[in-house]
Amino acid sequence: MGTGGVGDGAVKAHAERAAGMRRSEIRVLFDAAARAGDDVIRLEVGEPSFTTPAHVIDAAARAAHDGHTGYGPNGGLASLRELLSDKLRRVNGIEAPPDEIVVTPGAMNGLYSLYLALLDPGDEVLLPTPGFPNMDEMVRLLGGRPVFYQLAAREGFLPDVAALDELVTDRTKILFINTPANPTGAVYPSRLMEGLVELAARRDLWLVCDEVYDEMVLSPGRVHTAAAPLDADGRVVTVCSFSKVYAMTGWRVGYVAAPAELAEVLRTHQEPLVSCPSTISQKAAEAALTGPRAPYDAMLDAYRRRRAVALEAAEAAGLRAVPPDGTLYMLVDVSDAGLDDLDFALGLLRSHSVSVAPGSVFGPAGRGWARISLAAESEAIAEGLRRLAKALHEQEAERIGIGS
Amino acid sequence: MGTGGVGDGAVKAHAERAAGMRRSEIRVLFDAAARAGDDVIRLEVGEPSFTTPAHVIDAAARAAHDGHTGYGPNGGLASLRELLSDKLRRVNGIEAPPDEIVVTPGAMNGLYSLYLALLDPGDEVLLPTPGFPNMDEMVRLLGGRPVFYQLAAREGFLPDVAALDELVTDRTKILFINTPANPTGAVYPSRLMEGLVELAARRDLWLVCDEVYDEMVLSPGRVHTAAAPLDADGRVVTVCSFSKVYAMTGWRVGYVAAPAELAEVLRTHQEPLVSCPSTISQKAAEAALTGPRAPYDAMLDAYRRRRAVALEAAEAAGLRAVPPDGTLYMLVDVSDAGLDDLDFALGLLRSHSVSVAPGSVFGPAGRGWARISLAAESEAIAEGLRRLAKALHEQEAERIGIGS
Repeated sequence: MGTGGVGDGAVKAHAERAAGMRRSEIRVLFDAAARAGDDVIRLEVGEPSFTTPAHVIDAAARAAHDGHTGYGPNGGLASLRELLSDKLRRVNGIEAPPDEIVVTPGAMNGLYSLYLALLDPGDEVLLPTPGFPNMDEMVRLLGGRPVFYQLAAREGFLPDVAALDELVTDRTKILFINTPANPTGAVYPSRLMEGLVELAARRDLWLVCDEVYDEMVLSPGRVHTAAAPLDADGRVVTVCSFSKVYAMTGWRVGYVAAPAELAEVLRTHQEPLVSCPSTISQKAAEAALTGPRAPYDAMLDAYRRRRAVALEAAEAAGLRAVPPDGTLYMLVDVSDAGLDDLDFALGLLRSHSVSVAPGSVFGPAGRGWARISLAAESEAIAEGLRRLAKALHEQEAERIGIGS
Repeated sequence: MGTGGVGDGAVKAHAERAAGMRRSEIRVLFDAAARAGDDVIRLEVGEPSFTTPAHVIDAAARAAHDGHTGYGPNGGLASLRELLSDKLRRVNGIEAPPDEIVVTPGAMNGLYSLYLALLDPGDEVLLPTPGFPNMDEMVRLLGGRPVFYQLAAREGFLPDVAALDELVTDRTKILFINTPANPTGAVYPSRLMEGLVELAARRDLWLVCDEVYDEMVLSPGRVHTAAAPLDADGRVVTVCSFSKVYAMTGWRVGYVAAPAELAEVLRTHQEPLVSCPSTISQKAAEAALTGPRAPYDAMLDAYRRRRAVALEAAEAAGLRAVPPDGTLYMLVDVSDAGLDDLDFALGLLRSHSVSVAPGSVFGPAGRGWARISLAAESEAIAEGLRRLAKALHEQEAERIGIGS
C-alpha cells in the first residue's frame, strides 16, 4: 500500500477513541503461547475444547444446499427466534415472544449493540471486576464511562447490592451483571438476583444480564437464575450465546431478549452495523436447539469431572483455588508470587510451559489471580496446576531471599 | 417480558442516537413485497439470485468437520488473508500484505469499523447520492456528519472533482466513493480515480473506496479501477466483499485493505465489536477463491444477458433507463409519475404486483428514480418493466387530468 504516485503529505489522525484502545493483555499472552509451540499446556483458552457436534454441521450444510445462503432479516430468522422463544422459557424462565428476541453475530456484538442503543456520551455503566475484559472497551468506544464494582473472593465473588447502590450517580444508565460469571465461576443465587433487579428499578437503571454460560452450571444443587422473570417494567435485557454451551464459538451466533421497543432499535441498528447474522450459522443454531442433547450433556459431564480434578490438584499442590459453580473457568490465587500477574503468567509460560490467563485482564480486582480453563484435558489441568504451584513457590522463595 | 414483581416506574430513555434512527424505506417496501405473496415480480432485491456454489458449501462443511469451529484471530484467518493478498493484487492491482488486510463479518461491518476508527464527533464525511443507503446512518450513529455530494444523470452519475473540492471544510475527514456503484451502475474511469485520489491528498482526506462490486463489470470494454494503487501516502482504504461477486451474502464475509497502522486499529476494535468473523464462513470464502471460476463466470454472463434484456424492454416500453456498466442494478426514471418515488413504488406493487427499490432510499438525489435488480430472471425483468411503464403512464395521465 502507499506506493502510488500522487501526494506525499501526512495523513489526518485516526479518531481519538482509536488512540485510546489498549491491546488486550490476554492477546499478548495468547500470542506468546501460540509462538511457544506444541509442548505448552494451554490453560488460558477461553472456549470449549469440543468441536461443534457433527449433526449441527451437517444441518447447516444441508440448509445451505437447500438455498439458505442469502441475507436473512435484521435481527435473525423467524424460525430461529421461534425456537429461542421456547428455549428462553424452558431454560431461563423468560417469557419473550420472537419479536423481543434479536439474533446477533455473537453475544459480543449483542452487548456492543446494546451499549450503542442505550448510552449517550458521558453515561456511566457499572461493570464487575474481575469481569469480562471487553466490556469497558465497548463502553469507552461509545463515549460512555465504565465504573467498576468490586467482587471480593471473601464474598464468593458476588456483588454487594448496598455497595452498588453507592456507586449509582445521576449519570448511571446501566448495571451490567454476568452470571454464571467469567472468570470467577460464581452463579448468583436467586435472592441476590431479586436484590439486583430491585436496585435497578429503584435507581432507574437498565439491567443488562450476560447469561452466555446459562446452561453451564457445574456444582450439584446450584441453579442459574435469570433476572428477566423478576422484571416488572421492562428494564432487564438478557444476552445469551451458542458459543460456549453448544461449542459453537466459530459460528458467531448470540441473541438478546429485550423489551419490544429496545428490540426494535437493535434490529434497526443491525443493518448499518453488520447487516444480519450469518444465515448458515443461524441454521446451525437451529439444529443445535432441535437436535440430540447427548453431545452437550457429555460436554457438561466432562467439565464437571475436570473441575473435580482441578480442585483436587490445586489442593494437593497447596494452591488456593476458587471452586467454580459454573462456566468453564477456575481462579487460582497467585498473589504470593509478589509479581504483577501478567509477569507471573509470562514467566510461567517461559519457564514451565504452562499458559494461564493473567487476572489483571479482568480489571483491577483481577490482580493477583490467574484464570485456568477447564477446556483442557484432565491430565493437562492437573500437570499444569502442579507446575503453577512450583513456579509460585520459586517466585516466593526468590522474593523472600532464599532463592538462588 | 416485564411481567415480574419488582418496580413499576418508567425506564430511562434509549440513547439519543437510537431515537434518530430511521426505518429503512427499502425495508418497508421489502416487507410489503414479502406480504404480497408469490405472484409479485420482485425487482427490488439487493442480492444475487444465485445460491452459493455447492463446492463452497462442501468445503466449509469439511473444514468444520475437521475442527475449524472455534474462534479465529481478530481480523481473520492468516490462510484467508494470504489468499486475499493474491486476489487484491490480481483483481484490484492493490499490493497489500496479509497484515494490511482485515476480514470482517461483511463489508457493512468493515465500513462501520472504519468510521469507528476514523471519526471524531462532528467530523464530516462526503457521501454520494444516489448512493448506498446505510452509509449516512453509520456516520450519524458514530457522531459524524454526513455531507452529500450529488451524482447527476447527465454526468453519467460520476462525481465532479471540482464540486467535491468545494464541499471540503476543516471538519471533512473522509471522502467515501463507491465503484462500481450501487444504485447507478456507474464504473468510474481511471482518469476520474486519479482526480479523486489527488483531491484526497491535496485536501488531506481519508479516501474510503467501496469496491464490493469489483468483479461485476457488465459493459464490454469497461474495467474497474481501484484507488489504492494511486495512493502515495497511505490514505486510501479499500472495502471488498464476497457477498455479491461470489453469491455469498448470507455467509457475511467482507474485507478491508488498509495502511498497516489503521489495519491494527481495525483488528483491535474487532474484539469488542464482533470478536471475529465466522470461522466456517471464512473457510467457505477460501474455497470460493481457490475453487473453479466457472460458476462465477456463468453468473456474470447471466447478469450481462439480463442487462441487455432490461435495456431492450425499457426502450420498447418508452422508459428512460440508465445503462449500467457494472453491479447488478439499473436505474429507471419514474419522475413523470409526479409522485414521491416511494409512493410510486408502493402503488406499483399494489396495482401491478411489481416491486422496485424507490430511488429516495439512495439519498436526496435518488428522488424520481426506481432501482431494478438484475437478480431476477430475464422474463420477469421484461414483464416487470412493461408493467412499470404502464403504471407510469397511468399516473401521468391522472396527474395531467386525463385519467379516470
